[in-house]
Amino acid sequence: MDTSSDSPVTELTTEECWQLLASHEVGRLATTAGGVLDIFPITYVVDNESLVFRTGPGTKLVELTINENVAFEIDHYDDREGYSVVLHGHAQQLDTMSEVDQAKTLGIPDLFPTERPRVVRINPTHITGRRFRRS
Amino acid sequence: MDTSSDSPVTELTTEECWQLLASHEVGRLATTAGGVLDIFPITYVVDNESLVFRTGPGTKLVELTINENVAFEIDHYDDREGYSVVLHGHAQQLDTMSEVDQAKTLGIPDLFPTERPRVVRINPTHITGRRFRRS
Repeated sequence: MDTSSDSPVTELTTEECWQLLASHEVGRLATTAGGVLDIFPITYVVDNESLVFRTGPGTKLVELTINENVAFEIDHYDDREGYSVVLHGHAQQLDTMSEVDQAKTLGIPDLFPTERPRVVRINPTHITGRRFRRS
Repeated sequence: MDTSSDSPVTELTTEECWQLLASHEVGRLATTAGGVLDIFPITYVVDNESLVFRTGPGTKLVELTINENVAFEIDHYDDREGYSVVLHGHAQQLDTMSEVDQAKTLGIPDLFPTERPRVVRINPTHITGRRFRRS
């Protein structure tokens, strides 16, 4: 892909992707729990080049996709430009009390008024991002 | 789920979901093309209770997921409340010239400055939405 400044589309560096991930608090998680494709919004926080979020005890994510592949996306658009960042990785439920207690100190955003006692970490395997000028 | 007005979370009706889908122009599509889970933003338009969008000729979506299951999401958050709509369905590339020509009259938004000559329609199988007051 042409990444010159004249190109309407530029690839983001991994560092730029992490900066953008750290600047958001809501993204969308895609899962294939039990063979069923799903997508839903989550609030998250970046911790040491991983994503940490809370979820409910009965969700498909916790029951079925832990240690399976997930994909996560953030984006932003305004009148002049836009960007998106996509992260592929493995979701891992935090099991030990010390892991959960440590995660709770990270300040995971709490926009959704639902019970979400479980803590999940997404360890990335691949991260990409694009910025583009609007046509 | 408690859908009373006092509940912080309310389920949206199918009609409300379509109204919100029609009010957005960017959403995120999740696919499992070739067994690989992916997620990416698309610009789309609502047409007769389906979604129509354009994509490039070499994308995994066109090559591999046509007629397979996809999931699509929009959301919005402000200081007081938020909502999300999730649509599950089947993606179908429009093949005939008349189908493509008709789709091009729909005014599919063109935010992304990339070549996207193929037209895909997502026929929904299931649509859900939630609105919530922020905590």
